[in-house]
Amino acid sequence: MKRSLGAKPLLFPTPVLVVGTYDDQGRPNAMTAAWGGICCSKPPCVTVSLRKATYTYASLMARKAYTLHVTDEPHLTASDFLGMASGRDGDKLGTLGLTTVRSELVDAPIIQEYPLVLECKIVHVHDLGLHTMFVGEVQDIKADARVLDEKGHLLLDALKPLGFMPEVRTYHGMGPALGRAFDAGKLHMPKKAE
Amino acid sequence: MKRSLGAKPLLFPTPVLVVGTYDDQGRPNAMTAAWGGICCSKPPCVTVSLRKATYTYASLMARKAYTLHVTDEPHLTASDFLGMASGRDGDKLGTLGLTTVRSELVDAPIIQEYPLVLECKIVHVHDLGLHTMFVGEVQDIKADARVLDEKGHLLLDALKPLGFMPEVRTYHGMGPALGRAFDAGKLHMPKKAE
Repeated sequence: MKRSLGAKPLLFPTPVLVVGTYDDQGRPNAMTAAWGGICCSKPPCVTVSLRKATYTYASLMARKAYTLHVTDEPHLTASDFLGMASGRDGDKLGTLGLTTVRSELVDAPIIQEYPLVLECKIVHVHDLGLHTMFVGEVQDIKADARVLDEKGHLLLDALKPLGFMPEVRTYHGMGPALGRAFDAGKLHMPKKAE
Repeated sequence: MKRSLGAKPLLFPTPVLVVGTYDDQGRPNAMTAAWGGICCSKPPCVTVSLRKATYTYASLMARKAYTLHVTDEPHLTASDFLGMASGRDGDKLGTLGLTTVRSELVDAPIIQEYPLVLECKIVHVHDLGLHTMFVGEVQDIKADARVLDEKGHLLLDALKPLGFMPEVRTYHGMGPALGRAFDAGKLHMPKKAE
C-alpha cells in the first residue's frame, strides 16, 4: 500500500558536488550542490542546479565554466560548510585551508585537496524556477594518483565518495558492492534454446 | 598529484532509476537509467537521460510523462535486467513478476513492488547528443507505508536505496550516516564575537 508524499524534489542518492568558480574579482570560490547528475555520454555532459540568489550564480553566468568536485568522506565537513557559508562573506576556501590552481581547460579553479574533479564548459542554461540548471560539457577529469590503480582505473575504496539523502539530510559513505551492472540481471534473461 | 582521465561522464554516486512508460500499444514497460538527478526544488523537477535507440524514448516523446522508481537493494537484479533487456523483445515486467497500476496523475505506470516512485510530467526535452535529457515536473511521490515512520518521514534503513558507480559498474547500498547537512560544517563557521 503506497502513501502520497506530495510533489517534492526527492531522489536517492544524490552526489555531493562542490562547484568551483572565479568571481568577478578573479577570486576562487566554491559551493556545494546536491541537485545534479550525469546527463549525456557523448559528448560527456553533467548538470548542476543552483539558485539565482547564490554568489556562484553570477560567476557561472559570467564565465560560462565550472569545476565539479566529487566529495569524499574526509571532506564531509568541508563540503557541508561550503554549502552553508557564502562567498560574499569571505574566503571560504581559505577558511578551510584548501588551495586551488587554475584549470588549463576552463575558466574555473581546481581544488587540489579534492580527489576527483570535472572541468566543465557551460553549454546550456535553463531557468527551471527556483533553480537554474547549468549543463556542462566535460573537457577533462582529473583524479589523484592515489585513487587510481596502475591501469588508471578508479579505486572506489580509495575514492570513498559521499552520497546525500535529500529531506533526510544525511551524508553516507558507499557500502560494499552488491552486484555488477549488465551482469546481476542475467539471471532474469530468457534462457537461449539449446 | 592529479592525473587526467580524459573527458568522460563520471560522477559518484548516481541513482538507479527505473523509468516507467506506456508504449504505443498501451503496454507498461520499464528501463533502468543512471543518468539523472534532481534539477529544481520549486517546481520540483528531475532529469533522466536516455538514448534515442531505446524503446522507452518513443514512449516518452509520445506520452510526455514517466514514472521514476528508486531502486532498493532487493530489486538490484530486477533493475539490472530492466537495463539489459528491451521492451521491444517482450514483457520485461511480466518476466520479473512485477505488477503495475496506472498513475492517476500522469500517463505512465507505477510498479507496485518498488518502494518509492515519482510521477512526472515532461516539461522540457533536450537533445544533448547520444542522450536526450527529459526534465520531468514531479506531480506526486508515492512511497510504501513500510518505508515511512508514523509522521510520514522516510526511513532510509527500510528504503535501502542503491547507488551506482559509473565506469566501475557496481551497485552499492548506503553505508551508515556519517554526518548531517547544514550541521557537520558548523565547526568551520567563524565564531561569533562574544
